[in-house]
Amino acid sequence: MTANFRSDNESAVAGPVMEAIVAANEGAAHAYAEDDWSMRLDQAFSDLFETPTRVLPMATGTAANSIALATVTPPWGSVLCHRQAHVYSDESGAPEFYGHGLRLVPVDGALGRMSPDALAHAYAGCAGHGVHSYVPSAMTLTQSTESGTVYQPDDMAALNAQARGHGLATHLDGARFANAVVRLGCSPADTSWRAGVEMMSFGASKNGCMAAEALLFFGDERDSRYETAERMRKRGGHLFSKMRYVSAQLLAYINDGLWLELAGNANEQAARFAAMVARHAEAELEYPVEANEVFVRWSTDGFEALERAGIEFLTWPGQDDLGRFVFSHSTTAEDTDRLIAAMGG
Amino acid sequence: MTANFRSDNESAVAGPVMEAIVAANEGAAHAYAEDDWSMRLDQAFSDLFETPTRVLPMATGTAANSIALATVTPPWGSVLCHRQAHVYSDESGAPEFYGHGLRLVPVDGALGRMSPDALAHAYAGCAGHGVHSYVPSAMTLTQSTESGTVYQPDDMAALNAQARGHGLATHLDGARFANAVVRLGCSPADTSWRAGVEMMSFGASKNGCMAAEALLFFGDERDSRYETAERMRKRGGHLFSKMRYVSAQLLAYINDGLWLELAGNANEQAARFAAMVARHAEAELEYPVEANEVFVRWSTDGFEALERAGIEFLTWPGQDDLGRFVFSHSTTAEDTDRLIAAMGG
Amino acid sequence: MTANFRSDNESAVAGPVMEAIVAANEGAAHAYAEDDWSMRLDQAFSDLFETPTRVLPMATGTAANSIALATVTPPWGSVLCHRQAHVYSDESGAPEFYGHGLRLVPVDGALGRMSPDALAHAYAGCAGHGVHSYVPSAMTLTQSTESGTVYQPDDMAALNAQARGHGLATHLDGARFANAVVRLGCSPADTSWRAGVEMMSFGASKNGCMAAEALLFFGDERDSRYETAERMRKRGGHLFSKMRYVSAQLLAYINDGLWLELAGNANEQAARFAAMVARHAEAELEYPVEANEVFVRWSTDGFEALERAGIEFLTWPGQDDLGRFVFSHSTTAEDTDRLIAAMGG
Amino acid sequence: MTANFRSDNESAVAGPVMEAIVAANEGAAHAYAEDDWSMRLDQAFSDLFETPTRVLPMATGTAANSIALATVTPPWGSVLCHRQAHVYSDESGAPEFYGHGLRLVPVDGALGRMSPDALAHAYAGCAGHGVHSYVPSAMTLTQSTESGTVYQPDDMAALNAQARGHGLATHLDGARFANAVVRLGCSPADTSWRAGVEMMSFGASKNGCMAAEALLFFGDERDSRYETAERMRKRGGHLFSKMRYVSAQLLAYINDGLWLELAGNANEQAARFAAMVARHAEAELEYPVEANEVFVRWSTDGFEALERAGIEFLTWPGQDDLGRFVFSHSTTAEDTDRLIAAMGG
Repeated sequence: MTANFRSDNESAVAGPVMEAIVAANEGAAHAYAEDDWSMRLDQAFSDLFETPTRVLPMATGTAANSIALATVTPPWGSVLCHRQAHVYSDESGAPEFYGHGLRLVPVDGALGRMSPDALAHAYAGCAGHGVHSYVPSAMTLTQSTESGTVYQPDDMAALNAQARGHGLATHLDGARFANAVVRLGCSPADTSWRAGVEMMSFGASKNGCMAAEALLFFGDERDSRYETAERMRKRGGHLFSKMRYVSAQLLAYINDGLWLELAGNANEQAARFAAMVARHAEAELEYPVEANEVFVRWSTDGFEALERAGIEFLTWPGQDDLGRFVFSHSTTAEDTDRLIAAMGG
Repeated sequence: MTANFRSDNESAVAGPVMEAIVAANEGAAHAYAEDDWSMRLDQAFSDLFETPTRVLPMATGTAANSIALATVTPPWGSVLCHRQAHVYSDESGAPEFYGHGLRLVPVDGALGRMSPDALAHAYAGCAGHGVHSYVPSAMTLTQSTESGTVYQPDDMAALNAQARGHGLATHLDGARFANAVVRLGCSPADTSWRAGVEMMSFGASKNGCMAAEALLFFGDERDSRYETAERMRKRGGHLFSKMRYVSAQLLAYINDGLWLELAGNANEQAARFAAMVARHAEAELEYPVEANEVFVRWSTDGFEALERAGIEFLTWPGQDDLGRFVFSHSTTAEDTDRLIAAMGG
Repeated sequence: MTANFRSDNESAVAGPVMEAIVAANEGAAHAYAEDDWSMRLDQAFSDLFETPTRVLPMATGTAANSIALATVTPPWGSVLCHRQAHVYSDESGAPEFYGHGLRLVPVDGALGRMSPDALAHAYAGCAGHGVHSYVPSAMTLTQSTESGTVYQPDDMAALNAQARGHGLATHLDGARFANAVVRLGCSPADTSWRAGVEMMSFGASKNGCMAAEALLFFGDERDSRYETAERMRKRGGHLFSKMRYVSAQLLAYINDGLWLELAGNANEQAARFAAMVARHAEAELEYPVEANEVFVRWSTDGFEALERAGIEFLTWPGQDDLGRFVFSHSTTAEDTDRLIAAMGG
Repeated sequence: MTANFRSDNESAVAGPVMEAIVAANEGAAHAYAEDDWSMRLDQAFSDLFETPTRVLPMATGTAANSIALATVTPPWGSVLCHRQAHVYSDESGAPEFYGHGLRLVPVDGALGRMSPDALAHAYAGCAGHGVHSYVPSAMTLTQSTESGTVYQPDDMAALNAQARGHGLATHLDGARFANAVVRLGCSPADTSWRAGVEMMSFGASKNGCMAAEALLFFGDERDSRYETAERMRKRGGHLFSKMRYVSAQLLAYINDGLWLELAGNANEQAARFAAMVARHAEAELEYPVEANEVFVRWSTDGFEALERAGIEFLTWPGQDDLGRFVFSHSTTAEDTDRLIAAMGG
């Protein structure tokens, strides 16, 4: 028997979400997001985010990210993103596909966070050569980051202000947004639109849903952007006929704080493990642990022993001394205990 | 209270399929279709179709159709399809999107079925002008058709042989394949690869699944085409992290004949309604009823009365005297009785 | 020795145009259309067309047509065009390429001219199905048509008014615009923007230039459309570094009525030939001859005899009894005499 | 009066090339590269390169580069290029456009030359993550480089061998190939296919032609790649009807060593200027001068004085102390003297 820390996207569906799916399975419902569940999304997310919000439900984060970016970026436009961003490293060019050859420009920054200087540098490097250059058109941040850290709301606001000052549209990849909100203890609004975010991929699949993401549009341009994105969703084959089952997941997920409760467990288990690693004689933390991902620098021998003990986790090609352990809504205290014990903690 | 005959894609999920989803919700599973459910698909469909088959699970028929066609058609290639085909009329250019500007060439044919002469004519019209023309690259048929009719296996085989004689790859849109197989009383193989089909969108969402389609590859080129299609699925955002829930639907759907049982009910209810229409004083059948769709030509007044009686169905802009009634796996005899009664039958 | 009536695009460059190219070959000039020649285009064409006009010089009609249509049509938009239009039949999907999968919708109409009824029918057929359909976005006409006929200004105005009433942008493929203007004896404005045309591919290559087309933008949206098209021109590799040689061609071509003089010769020779065909015992005219193309219906034997006599012309696959004869600026009276004699005229 | 050192693409057309254009202007010729000039290209370049070569004539380097890369790279493939490469920095995404969203991966390397270590690092960084990553598919080098340096044939061969060892197709951007060949004093073959190059954009526009580039295909796959590229050329609007005028330029350009003679002058003038800068009290050379481009590091005051003296050259945004001076086939000794004098040399 194994314990799986490979990724939170390998976790099962949370009980209340599955119950909502089953509950939605009653009789016929109008297709293509014209069902009762989908039609309640705008109101539910407007309430949650304390601002008028348009919601486009989808089944994958890759689709949500790509469609968001393509909505605000012409084929000859570029999108600035952190070098480790999922859109840049893990989506096989889905943003370029939906954006018909738009370009992603990687921006540096320590601990998974884009730095203002690096953003300024990258912007300068891609602007200003007339029709010979791509037109910088958007910026996307990730909260929490691919390194398991979070942006403080003020830092996020500063980066978004910098981007909007250059005329860039702003997007947030919130695949692990819940973990960040729990960590920050703030309102969802504080680390999204109040911090300058105009569009957001509100992730739910990793944190207890089956396949559900909400592409959110805030602000004055929300309606026109929503309409463009809606066309792309259909054309990409992401307009489900039985969208009710996606929307029911989302409604259950944000109902009564479930999403924060689920993320709370993930963060808590990650923190327990991180505390052990911090005290470990040989292993050490690669990044500060601020959400539900823990990156550990250790010996190859150590990692191999873990694997033999039935612990599943990820390493990267050519980097055998760096392991990633992701904690999810369904990680139990026993799972974490077992991992800790296996590391000799 | 209403009775919904708008489309089978508005039906709920069949009990055994939902049970399979719930049963799959146990512990962690490897992401991105490397789970135990997904890894059983090739064998399960090879058994069902009596030939080695590669299976790419996806959530929508639009994605399956588009990716299939783009896999065998270069951007400067064309795809011949029936003028009423879903890929041509209802997917907002998804095939053109996945195929980077490939062209769909509509082919005529009565009762929703492409005619050999019309295929010959269309092929002649689009071939043979060197680099100035699109290269005819693929043909797609729909079984059962958009008119609610079916192709006899021999007729399908002849069309596919004609297409393959021109060097075209062959695809079958099987959004309502189950209904055709029930009607024909044949093996699935008989009206797919044995009839010359190389790739097939095996639809399940309309007939009892939640969001599940299997893109099937038969024949000698199945592996290389599968690999190309796999890239497109990822790039289109259709590689679900929690694919197990899609694959579990498909496995349950084809297990022990469930899919045929579900389609059998739909066909049976459609036949009951059709029999009544055939006897109706004013209304008449637009097409022979061979599957689960019934197209009725009637007066506008008649249709309006139906709507007032709580019957939901579709008409088309500018064609108020043509109504479509679709029967699904979950249409009850009482639903059909009610429809019949509302029409004065 | 042969006489070439295959296409006017096989003719040489007119003397004054070649002289202008040679004259432009003096010293250095700023690259990428920032040279003195290119910068005079807006004024020169504004004068010619009697209205403020933005001009984007390019080398091919395919590029001009495709970029124009892509400028006003989203990837999920459609363009209505005559079934025989060059964009539909002879550009291998260039409009779909530049437009990222937009769709061309063929419209019927006798004698190469789109009919208002067919336009209404085609529009009705492609509109109105929400996100499931392409959005009708533009209409393109061809003047003179692919059948060698012309639109009367009033007819063109009516079609464009109909299109604009549906919210479609309007484009004119003017590959043989000069021949139409000569035929009509009107101002260029009368059969372009005064007749509702918003964008126009002003062709010059077929009528005496080497490789030069001017994409023209009229009306209120001319600046923003020009800027979008400029991006596409660059991205398509059509922004020549030494654009001065393209622009010099265009300036010489429209200077002092040269373009009409050149087209006048083509039309005159075509008319002489057409008059003979009209009197011919066996051959007959397929279409009225209103510009510089003559389509002749004749026996296969007759056409083969012509070929043996050194007359070059085009037939189509499967239509051996239809020949196309195109007359150009450089067709001499002797060439035409020879053709007439060879047909026994 | 000014002296222009902004770019060699601002130079006029060399006398013999213009004479060839004028000479080609005799009578009709078959369109679309089926003329006598175009049909001689394969043989002429096979002779020049001492190996069977397929030639696709085009008018711009951007088109040649983009079509070459798209020919060997799927939309989900990546192309490794030097960070300063024209395809990456100056073509507004034309390779991404022709390649439907392929990705360019910038590789570092001093003096404009890709380093083997940086190539290894970049390859490692973009390979190996299954369908989640782009597939490394091609590498492109530039000879001479964007820094005005050249690759030694052995170094080029080593890089191409490294790339081909990874299964990458190899391309050479030869916008300034002539300058490199003159510098190296080698056969064109030595610094192209003998050094592992499979496809090459043989530039001519910058070195005396009007608008002419030859996309060359070497090696066993030359025919199939040529055929794919031919489709893209048409679809991109780059198949000129009057291609004879492009092909005539290319034939004249490589006839009797003209191209090397023209490049020889450019290199010689650049060397004279570089020698002066090397001795200059304040200014200094940024890179070794090995071809026809000279990059000078100097004071802003110095550069401003040059401009006032009527010297045209380029600087970059935010880098006022770096000037680029390009010498062309038509730069006269007097032009160079004037530049030298203006710098106080």
